[in-house]
Amino acid sequence: MTLKTTFPLSQRALIIDGRSAATDLKAILQKRVNKLYRDRKFKPGLAVIRIGNDSASAIYVASKMKQCKELGMRGFEIALPTNISLKKILSRIQDINEDPEIHGLVVQLPLPKLLNKQKILSAIDPKKDVDGLHPQNLGLLAAGASDGFSPCTPLGCLHLIHTFQPDLKGLHAVIVGASNLVGKPMGLLLLQQGCTISILNSKTVTPSDIARTADILVVATGKVGLVTKKWIKPGAIVIDVGINKDEKTGSLKGDVIFHDVSKVAGAITPVPGGVGPMTVAYLLSNVIRAAECS
Amino acid sequence: MTLKTTFPLSQRALIIDGRSAATDLKAILQKRVNKLYRDRKFKPGLAVIRIGNDSASAIYVASKMKQCKELGMRGFEIALPTNISLKKILSRIQDINEDPEIHGLVVQLPLPKLLNKQKILSAIDPKKDVDGLHPQNLGLLAAGASDGFSPCTPLGCLHLIHTFQPDLKGLHAVIVGASNLVGKPMGLLLLQQGCTISILNSKTVTPSDIARTADILVVATGKVGLVTKKWIKPGAIVIDVGINKDEKTGSLKGDVIFHDVSKVAGAITPVPGGVGPMTVAYLLSNVIRAAECS
Repeated sequence: MTLKTTFPLSQRALIIDGRSAATDLKAILQKRVNKLYRDRKFKPGLAVIRIGNDSASAIYVASKMKQCKELGMRGFEIALPTNISLKKILSRIQDINEDPEIHGLVVQLPLPKLLNKQKILSAIDPKKDVDGLHPQNLGLLAAGASDGFSPCTPLGCLHLIHTFQPDLKGLHAVIVGASNLVGKPMGLLLLQQGCTISILNSKTVTPSDIARTADILVVATGKVGLVTKKWIKPGAIVIDVGINKDEKTGSLKGDVIFHDVSKVAGAITPVPGGVGPMTVAYLLSNVIRAAECS
Repeated sequence: MTLKTTFPLSQRALIIDGRSAATDLKAILQKRVNKLYRDRKFKPGLAVIRIGNDSASAIYVASKMKQCKELGMRGFEIALPTNISLKKILSRIQDINEDPEIHGLVVQLPLPKLLNKQKILSAIDPKKDVDGLHPQNLGLLAAGASDGFSPCTPLGCLHLIHTFQPDLKGLHAVIVGASNLVGKPMGLLLLQQGCTISILNSKTVTPSDIARTADILVVATGKVGLVTKKWIKPGAIVIDVGINKDEKTGSLKGDVIFHDVSKVAGAITPVPGGVGPMTVAYLLSNVIRAAECS
């Protein structure tokens, strides 16, 4: 398997439009929501627990609620104070686990520092764990099984990669960043697709040398402008997961220097308008799947 | 972090002695078994379910039982016929899950072809899953948590790597083979150690090129003699997980051509006498840990 090239390499990279892909995906999801209502007379329900006052989290949760409702689904935001006890959080999660009107439950990250993230994520019923962060679901992903929920951002990245290159067998995918939320599940998803994978972290000695061997480069480091064209193999697919706010202008920047890398890459996602819209679309997709299986 | 070199590169590689490391580990385990009996008056118990007539499986299980008893632990082999129903297997697993005298339960792989491996492995109580193959335990490993059980062969490999190089941060570990049993959990364990990791599979286009960038090379493909010195960066640690029986002589051979690779590597495990003995030692270690937590 080698990477397809649909254009001369001297041209600029194809821009992978995440907004458009998310719109297309949501049109399909809309039909599934309608069918559920027609056949079984209920609407898929998503609950998001938000703990504390993180302002970015508040914006993200509001966006999830809005998009939920746009598809005719039900959205419930549960805002809890920073100083709430672990016991009370677990009790709220248990209530939602047992609520038949809620099919998907997300605990918005990051959590206030003193809370035990692993205990909270593990308390969610795996069948409602639409963020795919319960150990059971991560384990099913690691085992290559298809019946669990996978994390939404890696699912969105994979969708965008597939729009440019449907068959990934034998391609080398390099993932920059080894987080539980993106890097590790992304690696496991791409392994399932038959890719050779490499996962780099902040200790990696020569990241650009390894990145330059990548047919697919996924960057999720939170370091604005880390990746230049020197990191890129000509024709590679570059997926930029970074969403970094420029303190001066307020604009969003990726981990990849777009105008530089797009001279060399075969295809590239912009920031904003790349991975971001796909993440919420896949969250809704997971909720609908949970509702269909309920 | 760079790899230590304790000897001139012109010399042959250090041979990492798995038998000796397993003996040392079992001496420590013996003390924990004695302490459990002294303090709490019980012996750790391991049950192994063996389904069908695979002759290699019979030998492996007998070896587990023998080593269990050598440490003063209790071993129970449950041999079931090839044509047993899934329902009956799940019922036997449930009995063992509830048996307070059994702390660890292994279903010997490979299973007869018609059986659903995922359903069987998922039926084991994660607290008794000493092979670390239940999705819950794989997921805890993927999440970087330390409270689950990790698979025994990767644990043994990591132990052997540590005998030569205690701090792995920033080293590039390349794993050849992407199986659920070895390749994937090995990658996740080495990520936890701060390594950059690459996982290759049978579709990888130029495996030797990637392997030659490895500070640590773990080979688990089942392809006898696949890896030659052309795959090796001088001074690298080479861990050979392959156990392949030579049809003519009956002797065991690894995936690595030992006499060739040992001219270039910094350290290397032999076959037999490398990873094999460590796998059973870590199985016993997991059973004792399960007993201590019971």
